Amino acid sequence: MRISLVQLNVTIGDFENNIRLILDHIDRAKKSSVDLVVFPELIISGYPPRDFLEFTDFIDRCKSSAEQIAKSCTGISVIIGVPIHNPKIEGKNLFNAAYVLGDGKILDEVHKSLLPNYDVFDEYRYFQPESNFHCVNINNIKIALTICEDLWNMEDDPMYISSPMESLIKENPSLMINIAASPFDYKHDNQRQGILLRNVRKYSIPLLYVNHIGAQTELIFDGGSLGINKDGQIVHEMKYFEEDFSIYEFDEKTGLLKNDSKKNVRPGSDIEKIYLGLTTGIRDYFRKQNFEKAILGLSGGIDSALVTCLAADALGPKNVHVILMPSEFSSKGSVDDSLELIKNTGVSHDIIPIKDIFDKHRAALKPFFKDLPFGIAEENLQARIRAALLMAESNKFGYILLNTSNKSEVAVGYGTLYGDMCGGIAVLGDVYKTQVYELSKFINRNKIIIPESIIHKAPSAELRPEQKDSDSLPEYDLLDKVLYQYVELRKGPAEIIAMGFEKELVDRILKMVNRNEYKRYQTPPILRVSPKAFGMGRRLPIVGKYLS
Amino acid sequence: MRISLVQLNVTIGDFENNIRLILDHIDRAKKSSVDLVVFPELIISGYPPRDFLEFTDFIDRCKSSAEQIAKSCTGISVIIGVPIHNPKIEGKNLFNAAYVLGDGKILDEVHKSLLPNYDVFDEYRYFQPESNFHCVNINNIKIALTICEDLWNMEDDPMYISSPMESLIKENPSLMINIAASPFDYKHDNQRQGILLRNVRKYSIPLLYVNHIGAQTELIFDGGSLGINKDGQIVHEMKYFEEDFSIYEFDEKTGLLKNDSKKNVRPGSDIEKIYLGLTTGIRDYFRKQNFEKAILGLSGGIDSALVTCLAADALGPKNVHVILMPSEFSSKGSVDDSLELIKNTGVSHDIIPIKDIFDKHRAALKPFFKDLPFGIAEENLQARIRAALLMAESNKFGYILLNTSNKSEVAVGYGTLYGDMCGGIAVLGDVYKTQVYELSKFINRNKIIIPESIIHKAPSAELRPEQKDSDSLPEYDLLDKVLYQYVELRKGPAEIIAMGFEKELVDRILKMVNRNEYKRYQTPPILRVSPKAFGMGRRLPIVGKYLS
Repeated sequence: MRISLVQLNVTIGDFENNIRLILDHIDRAKKSSVDLVVFPELIISGYPPRDFLEFTDFIDRCKSSAEQIAKSCTGISVIIGVPIHNPKIEGKNLFNAAYVLGDGKILDEVHKSLLPNYDVFDEYRYFQPESNFHCVNINNIKIALTICEDLWNMEDDPMYISSPMESLIKENPSLMINIAASPFDYKHDNQRQGILLRNVRKYSIPLLYVNHIGAQTELIFDGGSLGINKDGQIVHEMKYFEEDFSIYEFDEKTGLLKNDSKKNVRPGSDIEKIYLGLTTGIRDYFRKQNFEKAILGLSGGIDSALVTCLAADALGPKNVHVILMPSEFSSKGSVDDSLELIKNTGVSHDIIPIKDIFDKHRAALKPFFKDLPFGIAEENLQARIRAALLMAESNKFGYILLNTSNKSEVAVGYGTLYGDMCGGIAVLGDVYKTQVYELSKFINRNKIIIPESIIHKAPSAELRPEQKDSDSLPEYDLLDKVLYQYVELRKGPAEIIAMGFEKELVDRILKMVNRNEYKRYQTPPILRVSPKAFGMGRRLPIVGKYLS
Repeated sequence: MRISLVQLNVTIGDFENNIRLILDHIDRAKKSSVDLVVFPELIISGYPPRDFLEFTDFIDRCKSSAEQIAKSCTGISVIIGVPIHNPKIEGKNLFNAAYVLGDGKILDEVHKSLLPNYDVFDEYRYFQPESNFHCVNINNIKIALTICEDLWNMEDDPMYISSPMESLIKENPSLMINIAASPFDYKHDNQRQGILLRNVRKYSIPLLYVNHIGAQTELIFDGGSLGINKDGQIVHEMKYFEEDFSIYEFDEKTGLLKNDSKKNVRPGSDIEKIYLGLTTGIRDYFRKQNFEKAILGLSGGIDSALVTCLAADALGPKNVHVILMPSEFSSKGSVDDSLELIKNTGVSHDIIPIKDIFDKHRAALKPFFKDLPFGIAEENLQARIRAALLMAESNKFGYILLNTSNKSEVAVGYGTLYGDMCGGIAVLGDVYKTQVYELSKFINRNKIIIPESIIHKAPSAELRPEQKDSDSLPEYDLLDKVLYQYVELRKGPAEIIAMGFEKELVDRILKMVNRNEYKRYQTPPILRVSPKAFGMGRRLPIVGKYLS
């Protein structure tokens, strides 16, 4: 049996284009004499559809889209993910389903059982978990068809009390097929292959796995669909961060999968993966909303320099416009370095000094501020003036503002709300400052794009004379290590201190993180590249007294 | 048996103060010869603790707090809600538990079975649902002890496939006790009493119910704890929006509850409930963060006038500072009306005209904007200048900025991001414009506080000459009706049109709502007073093509 896996980049709720994309690939499969085409989880709606799922109208459109696709399924079988109504009165109103299409209609359906409801996932918000299981038959092959998380209950601390494969294997299937929507993070591809291999080893049958690609606002999908033979050998690994269509030959007699495609190279380092994730994230954010041009403020620091490079790579330099907004506290180097970066990247730029505007604000506030010393209010005011100017250009010319805050800053609240924390999407909000340096080196791997002087200068917000980040924050090397333990690994203060960090430092950092939840609440969506990003996957009270 | 219900206003994660509050009430109960004191769900941690629950350290502190409280439980029994570790490896790591304390220790525990995971609720993110049930025995009385949602599977479209009371009733308990954390909305008290009565009628035993009071950022709890006899008579209803302690006498022989307390008056109209909810929300947001003073911009329109009154009522007029920031487009009436409101409320004020600052911005942008006509960029710029001034005062003097956007504006994106959409908390973000008028009349019920001219003028952002909201939006009467169907009732376009609204209007409004998800993502937390507020309870994709 010839089985093709199709990893697609769909848009949530864009039924017309999603159907067209799916039908095109079914046509292509027919032309390649494919017997079965397999599409990812919820590919008809896009993933995650979130509360669109609460609209009957939305589910009805999913259903009619599936029916329309089924009509094209003659002489070929299709497995495809779609949200459907649960006909029973008891329980949640929906199932996260895989339809088996063939003979021009819906032939069979399977419902997801293990519903991820942690980090960025909210599936139990919508779906009833299935507790009855059956294998599907396609061309007389018995297939254990599961949906994403259904195969994931194999960690040492299993999150669910049962596993659908334990039932399905009793029917002696010849093949496992898993359709997924498994978001990227820089550790995820290895973890995913580990889990899939554990299933193959446990159940001793081959496995085909198909995933989404592309970004849905903050969530990025990396593809990497694959087939694994029962001996644990990976037959063929599909592309990362690109749409792909590949045919696996399944030999019913030997039970072996074969694939003759050219071998794809998996992105190697964490940093390369993050680079691909971020550029995919920027590109799809713009493309899916029909935006073309990005704008950002270039400060002379490394964060905005890196975002300029990522945006130029994602959108093309002609679609990136940067604004230099020096103040009386900006160093000469900041402007010169920025101009060099602009030359190296080929983006366009304007310069708008902010001193006059800043002075007018101060004059207006003088009757109330009187002789109070220059402080946070004046520092933040400069950042807010810059934001107002960037947004004015954005409103006037239809640019979308890119936010340049990095994860270390977002974590400890080192940024100005309604100032440098503005933007349509936060490019580096899930990239620690120490990773910002690594990514910058990656950008410069072939030739210098980001001037060395930008990479080597001491980080500074340049909002008061001689300011350095290290005046307010621990050194980033140390800060990022503690943040990683607290944010990614969710270790408490005693555990972190036991690792050898100073109590005073740990308490100070954790307090900064918890007290600044209110700032993070109002920041743009953050492109998620780590296993624990700020945003939808990390939900904390704003008013709370824990470690604060 | 004498049973006291205690409805408290705790702070999430503030173990020290929460324990103190709980112990004080146990002492009080002891002095009143109470046999059993009942505290609400998760009262030790506060509700909702959200991802604090993912920290082992946090759960350990909950456990040690419970143990500390248990030590005081001699000669008295206590039922109290607390998150605890699930000792089993399989399944989620926690239970949402009720401990039975007595003899100085933890005597018994019950785990929540039905885990709300919709709207603002995320309980399946953390907790394993219990599937084994037992009644607890206290002073030889058999009690069916359940936790909040456990009693809620009685609607016509039940969300769960089983109900714990179906098992518990088989043990012939004499009494139901339900500990809850059931957030307020203006329809919720009636709905809640309806559900509780259905349980009493179905199981024919009396019920004691205890709830939280107070606000946790956006979620507001209204109390209203009560006892119901098996004939469906409400024995005593406790206070709304206030802490309360009340003793119910349970006669084991007759199976009747009695309570001699003075009858409390339940808030009557929806608008009165919303008023109480909003003032509670403001007050607790400030108190729980040790903030004292609020600031807001007073435009001369009804939204900011109403927020001024609500803040003055919640915090005292001396803690409310308003800023008038007239521009060249502000009408004379706007300033005069504002000054009258300031006089009527007793709040303090400053006036900062923005023309000079605005002109400086325009001059700086002139080289790029050239002769392009005055438009959205210039309109938004004024709103952003006002935000920068308000935030400068906020930063300088430690004020917290109150956001004044109403739900109609938030829904259709009629507001300036980083401008009038700024603030620490959005007071009216869950109050439609038509309700803003009703609330204003409520404020004026005894004497005129909000000048009639503010109530009667046509709504305008005053960002360009002769601007009216109705230039850009449908009339609010009509807009709010369509929004209610779409937002609260989640009806799709076909259903709304079938109700008699024009197709063009419906399509236009729904498109505005969906396209402005990106703005709502970056707005402050909204005090939730309706069954479907924007914010944590409504989660939609930003990049999506459904009805947009």
